[in-house]
Amino acid sequence: MIKAYAAHQAGGELKPFEYDPGELAADQVEINVEHCGICHSDLSMIDNEWGFSNYPLVPGHEVVGTVGAVGSAVHHLKVGQRVGLGWQSGYCMTCGTCLDGDHNLCAQAESTIVGRHGGFADKVRAQAVSVIPLPEGLDPAKAGPLFCGGITVFNPMVQFGLSPTARVGVIGIGGLGHMALQFLNAWGCEVTAFTSNEAKRAEALELGAHHTLDSRDDDALANAAGRFDYLISTVNVSLNWNAYLGTLKPKGRLHVVGAALEPLQIPAFSLIMAQRSVSGSPVGSPATLAKMLEFAARHHIEPITEHYKFSQINEAIAHLRSGKARYRIVLSHD
Amino acid sequence: MIKAYAAHQAGGELKPFEYDPGELAADQVEINVEHCGICHSDLSMIDNEWGFSNYPLVPGHEVVGTVGAVGSAVHHLKVGQRVGLGWQSGYCMTCGTCLDGDHNLCAQAESTIVGRHGGFADKVRAQAVSVIPLPEGLDPAKAGPLFCGGITVFNPMVQFGLSPTARVGVIGIGGLGHMALQFLNAWGCEVTAFTSNEAKRAEALELGAHHTLDSRDDDALANAAGRFDYLISTVNVSLNWNAYLGTLKPKGRLHVVGAALEPLQIPAFSLIMAQRSVSGSPVGSPATLAKMLEFAARHHIEPITEHYKFSQINEAIAHLRSGKARYRIVLSHD
Repeated sequence: MIKAYAAHQAGGELKPFEYDPGELAADQVEINVEHCGICHSDLSMIDNEWGFSNYPLVPGHEVVGTVGAVGSAVHHLKVGQRVGLGWQSGYCMTCGTCLDGDHNLCAQAESTIVGRHGGFADKVRAQAVSVIPLPEGLDPAKAGPLFCGGITVFNPMVQFGLSPTARVGVIGIGGLGHMALQFLNAWGCEVTAFTSNEAKRAEALELGAHHTLDSRDDDALANAAGRFDYLISTVNVSLNWNAYLGTLKPKGRLHVVGAALEPLQIPAFSLIMAQRSVSGSPVGSPATLAKMLEFAARHHIEPITEHYKFSQINEAIAHLRSGKARYRIVLSHD
Repeated sequence: MIKAYAAHQAGGELKPFEYDPGELAADQVEINVEHCGICHSDLSMIDNEWGFSNYPLVPGHEVVGTVGAVGSAVHHLKVGQRVGLGWQSGYCMTCGTCLDGDHNLCAQAESTIVGRHGGFADKVRAQAVSVIPLPEGLDPAKAGPLFCGGITVFNPMVQFGLSPTARVGVIGIGGLGHMALQFLNAWGCEVTAFTSNEAKRAEALELGAHHTLDSRDDDALANAAGRFDYLISTVNVSLNWNAYLGTLKPKGRLHVVGAALEPLQIPAFSLIMAQRSVSGSPVGSPATLAKMLEFAARHHIEPITEHYKFSQINEAIAHLRSGKARYRIVLSHD
């Protein structure tokens, strides 16, 4: 039996919950969970915000632990090895997208906490290819958030071949943005943090921003016209997107990883005149996850975390809901 | 004196008009105009639709002719050589964008018919670098529209490294779209023409489309879910952009070269879930113009044209305004 914490209704408190996972499939591994981050999408799933939650629901998709068991067809991971698991826990492995290495875009990709039970537990299972070895040099107690928040901001840097000569801007300095600043600085870029929060400015500079820009100051945006090669938006609110497009150089890209509910309003003329692009992306593939972890280890990149015991899980969730978490919360077993 | 045809007020008929161009600048050439296409943007400028027309205004920016004179600093073009001139007639040549080869995105780029006189004339001048030799094998009487409409649809194929393995769709089969079908077929792609015009379907197949799809049939769009790598929209009306995004594969791109006045409504979720992009672009650089002409000559690509004499210029313009031109109109001297 796996001992987990589950929500039993939309918005409900998490309570101890046991389930029988059955036999380990040939292509799976079982992870002994040591730590698990809490992500905003865990809250969305607990609250059934997206309409496809089933209860009891065991959240948790920023898992770090050790391999407890491997299926009969798994040869590249060994029992005892330290690994991590993120938003995706399996892929079809045979569609054109998977064969291209873009497993994260596979239409059949399985999500760790959708229709199955996640990492707020003593053990969690996943298809072995979705389970990534943690390299030496990363702190297991802090690495969990790299597997969802971290890869979300790192992945587009790889996907679009971001040049280290680029001038980049990060919109929103929170759980995702504070990792983006670190990755982009280590990548060699000139980094600007867009934030309207005065207290976060100094912290943004410490995290790797070379400049800050007040995202609510229309004059500051106007003065930055044509400045950036790449903007990554981590916020889930609607902004004056055309003003942000105006801060892009010719061939510049506005990339969104935070999903506002209202459609983006994008004047065609802004795209056409300067060959600009607007794009989005989800989490990354197994190969990109591995590249990110190696890059993070080499550059000593880690999230800023607050720590709770699994026994304090509802307190931790309430803290995340309050909007005061700085910047990611990790749960650990006693 | 240069003998031209000019509009003297917004929406006015074109009338014979002479002007003294002064001394030829060191970096310019003077073209003896043989043929000049009429583009919808000539109408927009005649009508002051964009608010920056000055009168008298000499339209015409799809010029083919021979070099009549070269400035003292021009060594790569010779008198008598057959050349063409498109929407842009000069660049700063020193900004980062020009130095990158992206002259078409130069903030100081000069437009052939904005604040200067264009090609509805016996002669027209332009900075030599914007004047492109016409290769053997292209019919001078039909090549003019390649310099604006043609390059507009060809340029993004080069800019985004479109793969010949791609499945592509062309939205709108008109002045631009009918050239896009030919370029994309010769590029090696699988080509689908999106059109709601029954009469244009057979023509689209002749022009290089492998399939057609009724752009007003929501079921047909739904059935094409996840089908295309690349869509190019040549229309200037608002469509149900999210339905079109749904027809894109993971990593697919919706590229707009026709500018609807209302902003595109783009749900962030559609971009994020499948790493899709929305982009736009204007005309191409001198280097891309030259590549396009060579490609068009090799593959016998030319616009379908209707021909008028310059003396019939107002009749030709009325025909274009009627929406019945199939597909581009070219004016020629007697």
